[in-house]
Amino acid sequence: MQQVDIVIKNSTILTMDNKTSTVENGCLCVQGDSISHIGTGDEEEYSAPKIIDARGGLVLPGLINGHTHAAMSLFRGLADDLPLMEWLNNYIFPVESKMDSDFVYTGTLLACAEMIMSGTTTFCDMYLFEEQAVKAARKAEMRCLAGEALYDFPSPNYGHVEEGLNYTESLIQKWADDPIISIAVAPHSLFTCSPDLLTAANELALKYEVPFVIHVAETLTEIDEVRKRYGKTPVNHLHSLGILGPHLIADHCVYIYEEEIEMMAAYGVKVIHNPESNMKLASGIAPVPEMIAKGLNVGLGTDGCASNNNLDLFGEMDMTAKLHKVNSLDPTVMDTVTVLKMATIEGAKALGIEDITGSLEVGKRADIIILDCNKPHLTPMYNPYSHCVYAASASDVSYSIINGRLIMEDRRLISLDINEIIAKAEKKAVQVRQWVKGQGFNGSGFNKGRG
Amino acid sequence: MQQVDIVIKNSTILTMDNKTSTVENGCLCVQGDSISHIGTGDEEEYSAPKIIDARGGLVLPGLINGHTHAAMSLFRGLADDLPLMEWLNNYIFPVESKMDSDFVYTGTLLACAEMIMSGTTTFCDMYLFEEQAVKAARKAEMRCLAGEALYDFPSPNYGHVEEGLNYTESLIQKWADDPIISIAVAPHSLFTCSPDLLTAANELALKYEVPFVIHVAETLTEIDEVRKRYGKTPVNHLHSLGILGPHLIADHCVYIYEEEIEMMAAYGVKVIHNPESNMKLASGIAPVPEMIAKGLNVGLGTDGCASNNNLDLFGEMDMTAKLHKVNSLDPTVMDTVTVLKMATIEGAKALGIEDITGSLEVGKRADIIILDCNKPHLTPMYNPYSHCVYAASASDVSYSIINGRLIMEDRRLISLDINEIIAKAEKKAVQVRQWVKGQGFNGSGFNKGRG
Repeated sequence: MQQVDIVIKNSTILTMDNKTSTVENGCLCVQGDSISHIGTGDEEEYSAPKIIDARGGLVLPGLINGHTHAAMSLFRGLADDLPLMEWLNNYIFPVESKMDSDFVYTGTLLACAEMIMSGTTTFCDMYLFEEQAVKAARKAEMRCLAGEALYDFPSPNYGHVEEGLNYTESLIQKWADDPIISIAVAPHSLFTCSPDLLTAANELALKYEVPFVIHVAETLTEIDEVRKRYGKTPVNHLHSLGILGPHLIADHCVYIYEEEIEMMAAYGVKVIHNPESNMKLASGIAPVPEMIAKGLNVGLGTDGCASNNNLDLFGEMDMTAKLHKVNSLDPTVMDTVTVLKMATIEGAKALGIEDITGSLEVGKRADIIILDCNKPHLTPMYNPYSHCVYAASASDVSYSIINGRLIMEDRRLISLDINEIIAKAEKKAVQVRQWVKGQGFNGSGFNKGRG
Repeated sequence: MQQVDIVIKNSTILTMDNKTSTVENGCLCVQGDSISHIGTGDEEEYSAPKIIDARGGLVLPGLINGHTHAAMSLFRGLADDLPLMEWLNNYIFPVESKMDSDFVYTGTLLACAEMIMSGTTTFCDMYLFEEQAVKAARKAEMRCLAGEALYDFPSPNYGHVEEGLNYTESLIQKWADDPIISIAVAPHSLFTCSPDLLTAANELALKYEVPFVIHVAETLTEIDEVRKRYGKTPVNHLHSLGILGPHLIADHCVYIYEEEIEMMAAYGVKVIHNPESNMKLASGIAPVPEMIAKGLNVGLGTDGCASNNNLDLFGEMDMTAKLHKVNSLDPTVMDTVTVLKMATIEGAKALGIEDITGSLEVGKRADIIILDCNKPHLTPMYNPYSHCVYAASASDVSYSIINGRLIMEDRRLISLDINEIIAKAEKKAVQVRQWVKGQGFNGSGFNKGRG
C-alpha cells in the first residue's frame, strides 16, 4: 500500500498525451504538486487522506484559457450588439480609464471563480494593473501567465510607456520563482504600439526568456490601419521588426494569409483562437483548420467577458468545432480530439508550459478536472471526446485540482469565498453604472424596451 | 390576502410580451394552470401553499424548442464529424431501422429530463413511434406538439405510408382534448416524400386544423435533388402543391432565396432555425436576419441530439446571436431581445400556441422558468437580456413550471425519476452499440486514437 496525497478512482481518464491515450476504469494519484501514478483499477494499492470517487465520470487535464482580460468580468453585458468603435469608444475605453487597482483585483477574483467552476486551471491574462491580477490568481491558486498591457498612450496604471516596460520587468523579477505564476511582456497591438515600443518589448521578452503576447490581425480595421502606417500586413510588420519567433503568442489572427501561416509555422509562432469574441464583435473567422494543417500551434481563448460574455471553455470548444465546419462546409474538419487538444495540450504548448501541464502524465504538475457524467445530457456515453466538446457544459465540472491542490470539491470552491466575491463585484458594478452615466450613455439597455 | 397556488417573489420578470416589458422586484402568481397576477413588490397580498423566493433571479417564459427528434438522445455522440451521407447511411438509418416503441419512449423521457433541466417547457417533436413520444411527454408533464415522421418507404412503426396517415389521424383524434399535448402532420422532407404524400398530408392537416411540419431546404444536396426531380426549389415545390400557409412549419430553411422569403412571409409560413445542427453537419447558414427583416416568424430549435449534441436552448441562443453577426460582419444584427424572442414568444407563434404560452401575461398558461443568478458568471447584471443569451447556461435554471404544475424545484425533477431514466437509457445504449457493431462499423471512435 503506497501513501499518496490524492487518489481519483472510478473514472475514464482522457490523458491528452501524445497518443491521446484513454484509460478506462482509471486510477490517478497525486503526490505533492505532481501526478505520481496513472493506472487501471489499481486504487486498492494506494492510500491517501483524500480519495475522490469520480462515479464513472471523466478525468481530464485542466483547461487552458490562452487569452483573456480577466477583470473585464466586471463589464459583462455592459454593452452588447454595438458597432466595434461605438462599443470601445463609448463604453469600454471610458470605463477602463476610471479603473484602479482594487477594481482589477476584484474583477480578476470574480473571473477566477468563474474559470475554476468551468474547468479552467490555467489562464493567460493581458490587462492593466496586472500586479493585482497576479495577486488574485495567486489567491485563487490558479496557474497564470500575466502581462501588463503596454501601449503608446498613458496608462491609468503606470503612466508613460517607459514606466510600463519597467513595471513589466519588475513583475518578471518578482514572480520569477513562483510555482504557478509567470509573467509575459504584453504590448497591446500593432495599432496601439509604435515600432519602437514593440522592439523594446521584444528585447525585454528575449532578455528574460518570457513570452511576448499581442493581439494580431483581429479586425479588418486593424489590417487597414497597419497597412496605411507601415505598408505591410500585421504579420509582415512583426517580421520586419524581427519579432516572429517561438516566444510570440499571437492572439486572434483572424486575417492571416496562406503564406503568412507558413512563415509563422516556420518561426514557431503560437496562435490563440477566440471564436466567440470574434463572432460577437463580427470581426471574422480565423483560418484555424488551415493553420493546424500547416503545423501551427493553436490554443483556445475566451477573450474578455465584455465580448463573449463568459469565460466558459466548454462553450468555446463547441463553438470552435461547429464554426469551422459550417465555414468550410466540411463536417470532418475540427474533430473533437483536435478541439479538446486546443483547450489542453496545444494551449499549454502555446503558453510554453507543456512540460508541466496540458496533459495527464506521470511527473507533470497535477492540473486536473473531473466531469460528473451522471446527468441526462451526458447519457449515454459512446465517445467521451464527443461529450467534452459537444454535450458537456461548464457546470458539469465537479472537481478541480491545480498544482496538486484541491481547489474545487463537488462544485464548492476551496480557495475563494464566492459570496464575498459576488458582493464585492456588485459594489464595483454600482461604480461602473455611474461612470457610464457620466458619459451620457445608458449602458444597461435595461429599460430601453429594445427589439 | 388572496389565495393562489404558487407565488414567485423577489425576481426580475422578463415577460416577453409585445412591449418586452421588464418587471423589477416582481411578484408572479399562478392559479390553476394559468398566470393570475404579475405585479411589483406586492407579494404580501397573496398567500399560497408554494411560495418561491427567486433570490433576485430572472423569471421568464419557459423556452420553446421548435424542432427536435427527442428520442435521438440515445444516439448522442454515436458518430460525429463525418460526411452527412456516411453519418446517415452507416449510423443513423441502420440504428433507426432497429428501433422499437420502448426505445422511443426511453429516449424521449431522457430528452424530456434534459429539456426540463435546461429551461425548455414546450417542444415540437418529429420522429417514429410518436405515440410513445407523446406518452413520455405526458409523463414528464411537458407541453408537446408531436408528429409521426411520414415518408415514402416503409416505417418500422406503421409500415406502409397509407398506414402512417391513418396513424397520424388517430393520434390527432386521441389527443384532441389534452391540455398539453397536440399533434401535427409531419412528412419528413421533400426528398423522402412524393408529391402525393405531401398533398395527402396537407389535406389531413387542413381537415383537423393542425400544423404541417417538414424539413425544408436544409442542405445543398436536397436543393439539387428537388431541382432534379421537380425542376423547382423546395419552397416553389411546396408552393406548386398548394402547401404554403400559416399551418406550415418549415424546419431549417438554410437555402432560401430573397423572393422566397417574401413569399413565405406573405403566406404566413413559420420557420424554425436550428443553427447548431446546421453548423455541425456543415449544412450552411440560414438567412435569419433577412427573414426577420421581411416579417417572417422564426423560432428556434435544437434538432436531434445526434447532430448537436444536446438539447440546450441557452447554447442555441448564444450560437444564434453570434453566428449571424460574424456571417454578416455586422455586430448589431440578432440583438439579445430578438434572440430571446425566438426562443419564447416567436417560437410559440411558430407552433401556433401564442395564445397560451411563450410570454408571461395574466390569463396565459403558466409555463415559467426561474434562473438562479447568484453565480460568478452571471455577476454583475447590467442587462438581463444579455445574460440570458450570452452568459447563462442550462444549469442556471433552478425552477420550472409547466401548465401551472411545478415540474422542477431547485434543480430536482418532480415529474421524472432521473436515476431510473439514466439506467434505462444506458441499457438501450448497449443495444445501440450491438446494432452498430452488426453493421461492421465502430460507432464509438473511443479507442481509435483519433486526431
